[in-house]
Amino acid sequence: MTKIVSVFRKAHFNAAHRLHLPELSEDENKELFGKCNNPHFHGHNYNLEVKVTGPVDPKTGYVIDLKILNTLIEDEVCERFDHKNLNLDTEEFANLNPTAENIAIVIYDILEPKLASNLSLSVRLYETPRNFVEYNG
Amino acid sequence: MTKIVSVFRKAHFNAAHRLHLPELSEDENKELFGKCNNPHFHGHNYNLEVKVTGPVDPKTGYVIDLKILNTLIEDEVCERFDHKNLNLDTEEFANLNPTAENIAIVIYDILEPKLASNLSLSVRLYETPRNFVEYNG
Amino acid sequence: MTKIVSVFRKAHFNAAHRLHLPELSEDENKELFGKCNNPHFHGHNYNLEVKVTGPVDPKTGYVIDLKILNTLIEDEVCERFDHKNLNLDTEEFANLNPTAENIAIVIYDILEPKLASNLSLSVRLYETPRNFVEYNG
Amino acid sequence: MTKIVSVFRKAHFNAAHRLHLPELSEDENKELFGKCNNPHFHGHNYNLEVKVTGPVDPKTGYVIDLKILNTLIEDEVCERFDHKNLNLDTEEFANLNPTAENIAIVIYDILEPKLASNLSLSVRLYETPRNFVEYNG
Amino acid sequence: MTKIVSVFRKAHFNAAHRLHLPELSEDENKELFGKCNNPHFHGHNYNLEVKVTGPVDPKTGYVIDLKILNTLIEDEVCERFDHKNLNLDTEEFANLNPTAENIAIVIYDILEPKLASNLSLSVRLYETPRNFVEYNG
Amino acid sequence: MTKIVSVFRKAHFNAAHRLHLPELSEDENKELFGKCNNPHFHGHNYNLEVKVTGPVDPKTGYVIDLKILNTLIEDEVCERFDHKNLNLDTEEFANLNPTAENIAIVIYDILEPKLASNLSLSVRLYETPRNFVEYNG
Repeated sequence: MTKIVSVFRKAHFNAAHRLHLPELSEDENKELFGKCNNPHFHGHNYNLEVKVTGPVDPKTGYVIDLKILNTLIEDEVCERFDHKNLNLDTEEFANLNPTAENIAIVIYDILEPKLASNLSLSVRLYETPRNFVEYNG
Repeated sequence: MTKIVSVFRKAHFNAAHRLHLPELSEDENKELFGKCNNPHFHGHNYNLEVKVTGPVDPKTGYVIDLKILNTLIEDEVCERFDHKNLNLDTEEFANLNPTAENIAIVIYDILEPKLASNLSLSVRLYETPRNFVEYNG
Repeated sequence: MTKIVSVFRKAHFNAAHRLHLPELSEDENKELFGKCNNPHFHGHNYNLEVKVTGPVDPKTGYVIDLKILNTLIEDEVCERFDHKNLNLDTEEFANLNPTAENIAIVIYDILEPKLASNLSLSVRLYETPRNFVEYNG
Repeated sequence: MTKIVSVFRKAHFNAAHRLHLPELSEDENKELFGKCNNPHFHGHNYNLEVKVTGPVDPKTGYVIDLKILNTLIEDEVCERFDHKNLNLDTEEFANLNPTAENIAIVIYDILEPKLASNLSLSVRLYETPRNFVEYNG
Repeated sequence: MTKIVSVFRKAHFNAAHRLHLPELSEDENKELFGKCNNPHFHGHNYNLEVKVTGPVDPKTGYVIDLKILNTLIEDEVCERFDHKNLNLDTEEFANLNPTAENIAIVIYDILEPKLASNLSLSVRLYETPRNFVEYNG
Repeated sequence: MTKIVSVFRKAHFNAAHRLHLPELSEDENKELFGKCNNPHFHGHNYNLEVKVTGPVDPKTGYVIDLKILNTLIEDEVCERFDHKNLNLDTEEFANLNPTAENIAIVIYDILEPKLASNLSLSVRLYETPRNFVEYNG
């Protein structure tokens, strides 16, 4: 019988960002996003937890080789966002507010098409140790 | 298409408690609850992890503003239980055994009615880093 | 109304292991498992997180007494694997590749029959703080 | 040449306490100790970090066998304070205000005489993950 | 006899920064500071650990009231740097490269004059969980 | 005035080892090292914390470029010990008992000669989260 297991891999990247909606006034932005609206940006150590669920290969005992998953995360996510200003340096957030929710969705949408079709994905993103989000598609 | 995301917020409070059932004898209580039955109480640093799941607002990129969620947790839970003796200082546990399970259920029942009806709640409570519980309603 | 709660208990054990498939050549093993194929073994501090879900006893406020769950984990899992070479010292992995996935499945299969039938089990195993797996049966 | 190394061992205990000076009025106590003065007590998961510094035995490669150090800490400190009310259940704090500072000093004074004379001791005590103290004698 | 104890308090702030020396060329800056030289900034969750060492008050059992120390850190450090761009929003780093070393020195120089003269100070600053610095004056 | 600051960098490696003294009998080894004497080895996730203390360069604001320190640790320590059997795969422990104390001393003796002469070194090695050692030369 096939066993279904989830495997997890953690990664991290450091980035600057600013929460801001161009269609709102300066005051409305400040009201809505508070200190996170600082026009000069602030930043975070983002910690990312990627969960891949699927059948265990009865031969190797792997759901997915974690070295391959790690390389995928490093190449597709960390390379793209590490030491970047999310608003200014990335096309993903040029027109999308970089809330933790939106960053998790973007990361999911980057990684999901790269996985085999029998694997399902979940993305957890820690903006701080006390604030985090999770997106399962 | 609406995206469903979970957001998490951590909080903590320090409290004293005692596990004890008045309908049992002293020996039955000791047998059942061991050191946790100490009549003079003992205590914990309780760590609370609140998870709220719902649609991401397509404009703001928020499920719920974490500042609002944080204020709700601080006002409704931490204010009520921090630096308290759960058995003696709170009406919630005057007649309810303050196990981690029951504390999590009580916190869920406090917070859930305060959330918008399209949001669902989960409460995880760490009594110690190695013992914890989770309640989803 | 019966409330369903999950309770968690953490434990740990230190062990040596080697990933290796006897039906493959030395080169195929190296290709597949990399440094984890070292014939002299390497090792980990395995951290185990056991989750038991079931109804809260309305009298005691317990799903399961964590002292009993802890003793079960210590006796059945930690005693068996702590300070062991998984490949050489255990019958479970004499003919099964000790990947994190397989170790989690083995631990689940050890613990599950010992629990009351109205309780369900989930096993999370950390091979390192950044690599971990979860199995729910 | 003898090498000097420090070895550390962590332990923990859960306890209730109250900060209070009997020679002060109720108001002065409240002013001085705030919520920590709650007459019904509150509690903490105390985490203890014991550091022993001395020469490495050139034969065994040990400063002190950590199994022996662990047993000493469990027997002399954890047994004494775990699941206790420090003010009511211990003679050490019957007449001494159980601040983190004083608890660390008491633990130091318990452990230091049990160590070989060529070893020096340091005690670090975490009252919460964000508040802690250290005493070196 | 007066006992000397250290007390620690943790705090945190999130900020953006850029490592850059105006007297060097663009290429020299890139060579020296790598990704940390990004002209659009990047950011961190800075974790701060403040250590204050001094005599335990024989009456209160305190070296310094941690509520007072916490307020001092919040008012003087976190208010100043939280959700700020260190290079653009603060006078401290208008002409000083905001390396972790320099940030720790600046924080020390802010806090030290506010402490009683019989207390000594040490500042530890985590830029990430794996990179941190300590300054003792 | 030159400011003296310590900078820290964390790294990790996974290894198998066995505590054993060839000049002792099997029973004496078992008596002395307990489960750590298992002839088939066991293993750990070793976490390494390297501390380098020295003057802050008044121009760059660095004590030492952490990228350079990180590369040094990876090349000289992690490459050497990661996924290795310390007793069988390394010359350092071919004739030296691989206690945490001895591993820390060996790492210190590898790294210290590679540092500039105005820098001092300290090595902290975690064998488990609860057992660790520190060596300052």
